[in-house]
Amino acid sequence: MASENLSAVLYKKRDTVPQCDIVLENRPVPEPGDNEVLLQMHSVGICGSDVSYWLKGRIGDFIVKDHMVIGHEAAGRVVKCGKNVSHLKQGDRVAIEPGYPLSNDEFSKTGRYNLSKVFFCATPPDDGNLCRFYKHNADFCYKLPDNVSYEEGALIEPLSVGIHACRRAEVTLGHTVFVCGAGPIGLMSLLVSKAMGASKIVVTDLFQNRLDMAKKLGADYILKIERGKSPQDVAKQVEELLGGMPDRTIECTGAESAIQTGIYATKSGGCLLLVGLGPPTVNVPIVNAACREVDIKGVFRYCNTYPAAIQMLSSGQVNVKPLVTHRYPLEETEEAFSVTRAGEGIKVMLKCDPSDQNP
Amino acid sequence: MASENLSAVLYKKRDTVPQCDIVLENRPVPEPGDNEVLLQMHSVGICGSDVSYWLKGRIGDFIVKDHMVIGHEAAGRVVKCGKNVSHLKQGDRVAIEPGYPLSNDEFSKTGRYNLSKVFFCATPPDDGNLCRFYKHNADFCYKLPDNVSYEEGALIEPLSVGIHACRRAEVTLGHTVFVCGAGPIGLMSLLVSKAMGASKIVVTDLFQNRLDMAKKLGADYILKIERGKSPQDVAKQVEELLGGMPDRTIECTGAESAIQTGIYATKSGGCLLLVGLGPPTVNVPIVNAACREVDIKGVFRYCNTYPAAIQMLSSGQVNVKPLVTHRYPLEETEEAFSVTRAGEGIKVMLKCDPSDQNP
Amino acid sequence: MASENLSAVLYKKRDTVPQCDIVLENRPVPEPGDNEVLLQMHSVGICGSDVSYWLKGRIGDFIVKDHMVIGHEAAGRVVKCGKNVSHLKQGDRVAIEPGYPLSNDEFSKTGRYNLSKVFFCATPPDDGNLCRFYKHNADFCYKLPDNVSYEEGALIEPLSVGIHACRRAEVTLGHTVFVCGAGPIGLMSLLVSKAMGASKIVVTDLFQNRLDMAKKLGADYILKIERGKSPQDVAKQVEELLGGMPDRTIECTGAESAIQTGIYATKSGGCLLLVGLGPPTVNVPIVNAACREVDIKGVFRYCNTYPAAIQMLSSGQVNVKPLVTHRYPLEETEEAFSVTRAGEGIKVMLKCDPSDQNP
Amino acid sequence: MASENLSAVLYKKRDTVPQCDIVLENRPVPEPGDNEVLLQMHSVGICGSDVSYWLKGRIGDFIVKDHMVIGHEAAGRVVKCGKNVSHLKQGDRVAIEPGYPLSNDEFSKTGRYNLSKVFFCATPPDDGNLCRFYKHNADFCYKLPDNVSYEEGALIEPLSVGIHACRRAEVTLGHTVFVCGAGPIGLMSLLVSKAMGASKIVVTDLFQNRLDMAKKLGADYILKIERGKSPQDVAKQVEELLGGMPDRTIECTGAESAIQTGIYATKSGGCLLLVGLGPPTVNVPIVNAACREVDIKGVFRYCNTYPAAIQMLSSGQVNVKPLVTHRYPLEETEEAFSVTRAGEGIKVMLKCDPSDQNP
Repeated sequence: MASENLSAVLYKKRDTVPQCDIVLENRPVPEPGDNEVLLQMHSVGICGSDVSYWLKGRIGDFIVKDHMVIGHEAAGRVVKCGKNVSHLKQGDRVAIEPGYPLSNDEFSKTGRYNLSKVFFCATPPDDGNLCRFYKHNADFCYKLPDNVSYEEGALIEPLSVGIHACRRAEVTLGHTVFVCGAGPIGLMSLLVSKAMGASKIVVTDLFQNRLDMAKKLGADYILKIERGKSPQDVAKQVEELLGGMPDRTIECTGAESAIQTGIYATKSGGCLLLVGLGPPTVNVPIVNAACREVDIKGVFRYCNTYPAAIQMLSSGQVNVKPLVTHRYPLEETEEAFSVTRAGEGIKVMLKCDPSDQNP
Repeated sequence: MASENLSAVLYKKRDTVPQCDIVLENRPVPEPGDNEVLLQMHSVGICGSDVSYWLKGRIGDFIVKDHMVIGHEAAGRVVKCGKNVSHLKQGDRVAIEPGYPLSNDEFSKTGRYNLSKVFFCATPPDDGNLCRFYKHNADFCYKLPDNVSYEEGALIEPLSVGIHACRRAEVTLGHTVFVCGAGPIGLMSLLVSKAMGASKIVVTDLFQNRLDMAKKLGADYILKIERGKSPQDVAKQVEELLGGMPDRTIECTGAESAIQTGIYATKSGGCLLLVGLGPPTVNVPIVNAACREVDIKGVFRYCNTYPAAIQMLSSGQVNVKPLVTHRYPLEETEEAFSVTRAGEGIKVMLKCDPSDQNP
Repeated sequence: MASENLSAVLYKKRDTVPQCDIVLENRPVPEPGDNEVLLQMHSVGICGSDVSYWLKGRIGDFIVKDHMVIGHEAAGRVVKCGKNVSHLKQGDRVAIEPGYPLSNDEFSKTGRYNLSKVFFCATPPDDGNLCRFYKHNADFCYKLPDNVSYEEGALIEPLSVGIHACRRAEVTLGHTVFVCGAGPIGLMSLLVSKAMGASKIVVTDLFQNRLDMAKKLGADYILKIERGKSPQDVAKQVEELLGGMPDRTIECTGAESAIQTGIYATKSGGCLLLVGLGPPTVNVPIVNAACREVDIKGVFRYCNTYPAAIQMLSSGQVNVKPLVTHRYPLEETEEAFSVTRAGEGIKVMLKCDPSDQNP
Repeated sequence: MASENLSAVLYKKRDTVPQCDIVLENRPVPEPGDNEVLLQMHSVGICGSDVSYWLKGRIGDFIVKDHMVIGHEAAGRVVKCGKNVSHLKQGDRVAIEPGYPLSNDEFSKTGRYNLSKVFFCATPPDDGNLCRFYKHNADFCYKLPDNVSYEEGALIEPLSVGIHACRRAEVTLGHTVFVCGAGPIGLMSLLVSKAMGASKIVVTDLFQNRLDMAKKLGADYILKIERGKSPQDVAKQVEELLGGMPDRTIECTGAESAIQTGIYATKSGGCLLLVGLGPPTVNVPIVNAACREVDIKGVFRYCNTYPAAIQMLSSGQVNVKPLVTHRYPLEETEEAFSVTRAGEGIKVMLKCDPSDQNP
């Protein structure tokens, strides 16, 4: 096994500014514990949260204090198994679920382990996996079938957000769905909604290029939002496009006006699902929602999504490949982050294995 | 059958003020249609909404324009059946569900008929049943067992709000519940939560006398809210009383600060259920709710509650009798409304049958 | 409007035999009631139950005693509306939901109207709609979008059985599904399972030609059942094909051995859904099912399926067109029934409109 | 800490007979692992399954091969904590959940850990806890509030079966329930049904003394089953007592005729929940169940019941104390088993702490 372990690490610039530097440094190759596997990393996608930690040094109450390896949308290859690991073996290609519960508490026992105290890659203070070698809880590494690529494996992470959102929104056969925001999470929600039986989906965004990708991925209707339009008016446009109010709204922007639009738009008895995070408090037309029994639900990451995601990718029911628009070797991490920040592509992939830079 | 039909009717005072007068006038005894029953009214409870129509002439977009008979929490006796009515017969004592769907639309077909276009007693422009004789859709009149009184029958209406709220909140075995507001609906939510398996319930209010009634009806803890206390601080108090954050919160005031408190207080993965209606838009700590997967749900009246309510009253699992604190003959309707407005009692009953003024 | 109304009517041959004759006779064109529409029939599919009534004069306790018009998988065109009908107008093309509740009872109010006392086309004593002109409850006629054909409209009936089955089985994203039996209902269950998110589906049958159709419609695996094989062995084969026990089993044959296979095959915590009806009592490995929490559920027809089905057909998410293998004009009803009985095709359509025999 | 550890151990009599002997022997006091606690046992209830192992040496495929300590309905006091244990401390009184998952598999991650591969006290080959000192997974030991006794803690085990059954049957407000069998599990199901909102419950059994206990514990109706009566006739009697078919049936006997009765009795759209285990295969009126959408569900032990149970016992919503009819010191284990076998009481408790034989 290689003794070098090039890793992309966030360093606080200095105490007086929030920004971090991305430093590529060689770290020791970790030794897996009894219930862990050591992985040679292959593909790691960049997420908006990664960029936030880089540029702002924090997300909400999570603050980068010490050096932290970045990266959490990842897939790699098992190179060593801890002694209690029986469901994986050396050479297995795996998708890595970045979060797992640290205690067997009420949430964990009832199947909602995302609400437990968790370890989560690249959320301070936990290190991520944008590096050459990384060890992880083996129970949260999932073997990829031969027909699912490493990059698809890495994309299971953002796909999982879409799955958890659509499950919590109870999207089902024949539903019309309004997806607000055409970034990676909006696009994943679009794909998952279709896969769960939605009949017609409208996707909105401020930018035409993102809407074009939504259209390419199967959106039945796209709508470019004009700034300054009232939430009620946007809701009306959505209704007209769908020929009726949407059964479900998946809100992926976090903007106050979008949340308001989501309430006005959603059919009585339906659900507004909040994925996007914006300002901590917003003004909400609560009586409109309450009196029409439009449920307002949020999501915190996801749980129990990886097995279903692998099934869907393997069977071809969901195709996430078009989302990858850029690829960079691990050595060019900063360039890759800059491209992501500029919003030039949809999903930027970093390739961690020098001997295999394929998808 | 008597030919007189004394009825309590709201009249707009004049065009320039919103208030209404309560006028007692003699109206024709109606003739039931083929699917209707004619009822001799016995007991009609006064609801806060009745008082609002009287004092303000409106609730939200519902405005008293024409004369309208008031009253919708009611029970009576069948005096005549339409020709298609087979499940009721003359002399049956019934509880009257005041709302029923007017069309067989998607909501109605899927069992959520409260979201359909409905007829609803004493909601403009539909007349209520605070009168001597009233006809109603027979399918929405429910026979009372011998051991359930007329007044209990009338109380099924506010009890239904509690049932619908607790069902939508999915209160179940072992839950701790925070009921915010100790008016009739809060008290009903308390009773229903207990009946559905809640283990410990804290009830909050601004007024000690209302809290005393909550205690009498089975609240495990009561908490008098001090004005000016922050939502986070009240949430903390609730948590301390229960020995943990409540699984469910039933918010019965509509106040912005109470809704905020409800979010901060509720356990991750739980539900904040909004029954009370206040200002149309409120400022909500939405990220706190979303990231802890605290679902925010409202209710619009209720559906499919009457049969369960009758079962619970008949079996003695729920006891609503202590809620009736005042009784007046129909002739003293205005006095009864004044007492309700003054907040002197919990539930004021009007007795419509001159020959039987018993409970 | 035409004054003739050619109708396909079952006549008991004579008292001593159960079989019926199919008689084509001219009946009066009916007059729609206030809540009804008069329809010019266009396409009517033949169902196995229709054939059973023809050949055996009964299904279970439903016995053909009087003459009965046959046919219940149907679509037509509105030619006249009753005075209360507002959601349809003359010329609208509609799919006809053959069953509707006759009373507003508990089942109907809670959204499970299929369990109410119902009218149901071509179930004794109710007449069906294999004729030129037919009147029906307007609330159970659903307007077809322009891109959904009459035959697709007629196929919503068997599709509805699949929808109701998959809903009750709670098929969802990533599930593997075992569909037992590749007749029309099995094929519909296959299509709906895929549309609701199933990843991999295995379909079994005794006949290769039916399995070939399943494969054509998207089955991931097909398995020809060899008579005499034990239920445990078939279950093992299913598990091997899917690479694990199926999350859900949709049993469409009613055969005792198939029900046993369904229990042995289904993953712990899953569901065996019974659509097929066979002998009234069967021997069931109940401890195996109970101890692995494999739920056994059945279906009675369906409810609330038509709007979702129309959405799915219109959006192209479900394609039922390949199921129609034969077409006959109404005049050749007996020939069409003979072909169905012989099992030569999948779905045989009767064309009731002499001026339009297109799909 | 004491160095002796008197333990009740099943020994196979000899290879040629299935029966076991109960041997009281001194075993080493175990040392708790990092995630375990060492407990001084206080109260252990005897379950029917314990008696089966004693008399028959097996239950289904679980066969007593080696010596096995018996006992799994238990409560004790923490005497030592492993180094990772933080939620418990020396002196805490705890209820012991006897089963816990051995791997973090799909079932465990989704909150159905009872379906995982588990350790389970006194199920071969796992030792139970009818002894002086016992070590257990700390995450499955639950601190008892001061107002819940050790014996109530031990009774949480059978209570859990009732909770899991009633949850899976979705018993809720206003339901009528038919509990078949008045042994400890039937009685627990009765108590839990009431606590979850059931309005009226009928309990059946072959023996009057068991029915008397059911009545004492709150059954609204009791019915002594006459042998030879047809399932349909018993179903009719149940319907007459309740004034309608029960919404839910909890079957606690496993007898074929009782399962058949359960199907015939249950209201359309309801649920027959199988708790009792009898012959591995039974003859079932499957068409009756399927066509009326009566779901047939079983249970395998339980999961996530202990916290709710403790809440309910502590709040007084459920009172299990009357079920304890006999108490014996650990030294008299064989006598206690004999009394249980003879069916003389409801629940027999063994007292393991020589210095505290109180409830």
